[in-house]
Amino acid sequence: MTVNFNNVIKIMSIIFFVLGFSMIPALLVAVIYDETASFTAFSSIILLCFGTGYVFHKMYQPAELKLKERDGFLIVALCWLVASLVGALPFVMSGAIPSYIDAFFETCSGFSTTGCSILNDIEALPKSMLFWRSFTHWLGGMGIIVFATALLPSIGIKGQIIASAETPGPTLDKISPRFSDTARNLYLIYILFSVVEVLLLMAGKMNLYDALVHTFGTVGTGGFSSYGDSIAHFDSGYIQWVIIIFMLLCGINFNLYFVLLKRGIRNFFSDSELKLYLLIIAGITLAIFLNVYQAGHYESIGKAFTDSAFQVVSIITTTGYATCDYDIWPTFSRMLIFILMLTGACSSSTGGGVKLIRILVALKMVRRGVSLKLHPNRFIPVTVGNRPVPQEVATNIANFIFLYIFVVFAGAAVISLNGFDLMTTISSVMTCVGNIGPGFNLVGPSMNFAIFSDFSKVFFSLLMIAGRLELFTFFMLLSPHYWNANKV
Amino acid sequence: MTVNFNNVIKIMSIIFFVLGFSMIPALLVAVIYDETASFTAFSSIILLCFGTGYVFHKMYQPAELKLKERDGFLIVALCWLVASLVGALPFVMSGAIPSYIDAFFETCSGFSTTGCSILNDIEALPKSMLFWRSFTHWLGGMGIIVFATALLPSIGIKGQIIASAETPGPTLDKISPRFSDTARNLYLIYILFSVVEVLLLMAGKMNLYDALVHTFGTVGTGGFSSYGDSIAHFDSGYIQWVIIIFMLLCGINFNLYFVLLKRGIRNFFSDSELKLYLLIIAGITLAIFLNVYQAGHYESIGKAFTDSAFQVVSIITTTGYATCDYDIWPTFSRMLIFILMLTGACSSSTGGGVKLIRILVALKMVRRGVSLKLHPNRFIPVTVGNRPVPQEVATNIANFIFLYIFVVFAGAAVISLNGFDLMTTISSVMTCVGNIGPGFNLVGPSMNFAIFSDFSKVFFSLLMIAGRLELFTFFMLLSPHYWNANKV
Repeated sequence: MTVNFNNVIKIMSIIFFVLGFSMIPALLVAVIYDETASFTAFSSIILLCFGTGYVFHKMYQPAELKLKERDGFLIVALCWLVASLVGALPFVMSGAIPSYIDAFFETCSGFSTTGCSILNDIEALPKSMLFWRSFTHWLGGMGIIVFATALLPSIGIKGQIIASAETPGPTLDKISPRFSDTARNLYLIYILFSVVEVLLLMAGKMNLYDALVHTFGTVGTGGFSSYGDSIAHFDSGYIQWVIIIFMLLCGINFNLYFVLLKRGIRNFFSDSELKLYLLIIAGITLAIFLNVYQAGHYESIGKAFTDSAFQVVSIITTTGYATCDYDIWPTFSRMLIFILMLTGACSSSTGGGVKLIRILVALKMVRRGVSLKLHPNRFIPVTVGNRPVPQEVATNIANFIFLYIFVVFAGAAVISLNGFDLMTTISSVMTCVGNIGPGFNLVGPSMNFAIFSDFSKVFFSLLMIAGRLELFTFFMLLSPHYWNANKV
Repeated sequence: MTVNFNNVIKIMSIIFFVLGFSMIPALLVAVIYDETASFTAFSSIILLCFGTGYVFHKMYQPAELKLKERDGFLIVALCWLVASLVGALPFVMSGAIPSYIDAFFETCSGFSTTGCSILNDIEALPKSMLFWRSFTHWLGGMGIIVFATALLPSIGIKGQIIASAETPGPTLDKISPRFSDTARNLYLIYILFSVVEVLLLMAGKMNLYDALVHTFGTVGTGGFSSYGDSIAHFDSGYIQWVIIIFMLLCGINFNLYFVLLKRGIRNFFSDSELKLYLLIIAGITLAIFLNVYQAGHYESIGKAFTDSAFQVVSIITTTGYATCDYDIWPTFSRMLIFILMLTGACSSSTGGGVKLIRILVALKMVRRGVSLKLHPNRFIPVTVGNRPVPQEVATNIANFIFLYIFVVFAGAAVISLNGFDLMTTISSVMTCVGNIGPGFNLVGPSMNFAIFSDFSKVFFSLLMIAGRLELFTFFMLLSPHYWNANKV
């Protein structure tokens, strides 16, 4: 057994302390709105977290904390699982969500920044519970940025093919000063975005509570709202455009903001992935706008354009907020939304999905494939932004996309046992693995996941975590090789 | 311009002569059944073919016929296109299918061995027309085996990863005695299968005409029947099992039959792709059988098992015959059928789709991906049947799968303009690219493609040809590089 459990214990103790502290804001909301059951629930769970954290801390035998990469995978997966298991407790204890499985689903959906829900009546929940529910998005989104920066290089997308040589390429086993710096800077940008969005939303006459809840859902690219009709609740073009802009900003590689600060806007916009991202958003927004407007779905051009832009940005960034039900749009528009569910946003953003850099490399591989057929003996590298993509990076990207496809199909086979139609089945799995939120038909934007069996809800929960950890981290733990050092 | 048009002219002259001869059996059927309009149509088109062939023959300037690989791609694509354009003429001229676009669709579907139809009333067509329609399957299936053997090596699946070192790996620019031998032997196996199936079907009291039509549809893995209800028309377990067995046989790599003859049954069954093929068929047949039987769709266990096996083999081999409507099965069974539509059968068979060898390599790549995360510095090759898969083969397979996915999604976006539901849209594109036949919902086994616009029918026709030529051959011709030697 090569896994260092002493390290795992140390980290668990940290997680429990962090979870305890994380619930304090929700506890304050319970105090402000005088929600007794929620107050009792949060205070008990906070004490439980601190107690458990302390027990783990005591179990830990002080030694040099030296993380190996393989410990990293286990720790990361454990973090998300434990956070979801414990984060679900307040919902159950307060009676807001009576079923533990439902609460676990909702919390996984929160931490993984998916945003799909089993709640039929969102407004019926206490405000402190909805606050905690959305706060998990914010925590999850923050975690993602750091994990992405730490793990993406080891998963195949190396710094050199992302825009700038400035981008660090650390791995989790070197928690170096440089990595800590990067993580701190990423948090700062994340917090800055959050503060600015809250202020802008409040400037649009949103109250502080709603502004916080919807900022958590936006910057984490999560999608939980405190209203059943999501952002459609705010009949304000201003608010909808603020949210569009912040979803868009959080779908961009956060490392690029360093490039922007240090090397100017020209270098920022020279990033191939960013260019593709903006091109897709502009192109598909325009296509959908023309399609829905000419199909007579809208009387106002402005509303048609806002709804098109909002839904496109919401889906490509895997946020999942809605200002309308895209599932009643014409098939062409729905098909484009379906395709966006697979692409996802930029790497090292808070968004999920396959990520555009992988799609870009895959497209370039196809183009090279055609050239290779014509010139079989010529060396033709795959290039992104004039830099060649190393062979092993291209292979890793292929591996990832294949695993993604297999997970979607295998998942759909499991979920098909619920007996819903094929599009519901496939899109429910896609939306969970991609951490998006809504799908099509019975899981469309105006529907929810309450219809599924308990088994399916647990399965979806694991899919959301697996998707959030970019699959390999999760599936590696299911491999016997991970647990047995003697096997290759 | 590097394309040698003199060679193209030479080949065109051959194609027209071959097409002329190919219609003679249908002409004889018209004579036997005394179908005047069909007789006139076939005899005129046959004369037209011979005349055009002669003109091309005269245009050709005798020179050494030296085929370059890049000429090969153009010739192959032209063959299929011209065959479909000319093969459609008898339908239109006889009035059997009044619209030329419909007739072109039907003929592309025939030659590409897809088997989807725009006919609402199949039985209303003259027997000679239905004979020609099915005969295109037989011609198409035969063409594919040879093209596959000739082109597959250049497309990335080298002999060494197909079962045996016996497998030749020629390319089209070496029309060597060795390649001719191989082609002749492949034709012999194909004809042998056809003769045996006809005899076995007639032993089951099928008349010669029906036996021929359904043998063409089976061994070509096409799927056209002379009856609207396909193989369900024959309420005979014997006939259905004969067809199951021949579909299954024709979904196997034809080169393996040489291995069987020369090196015995042990080497035959040691082929990794074949093992996966049989495993998938057995596993999914069992799963669907249990699912449909326990859902109460069948009173008879035997009928439930036959239908499960039939539909599974029909879809995985991309034949598309039906003994029942799988689209009324429970979702789990339909989901499994949906997945089979993507896998396809074995390489160098008459079947279409992605092909199992590619799926197998992709699965192995995922497994290696997990191992690489654990042991980043270790060299871990992808192996199939204990042989390492060369890096460039793995890359070619990844390129192909990516192109396949892009074609399906881009195609679905185009077809979504028809405004049918998403599952109809996606499955119609999948079934055409994969040369299968039926899809889901409005293109399910009991439906047809008559509902689509003329533009969509032409688009589907090109997709069928593109799919049949394994995409790269087709898309290469759309690349400006193909036509301009100076560009890389």
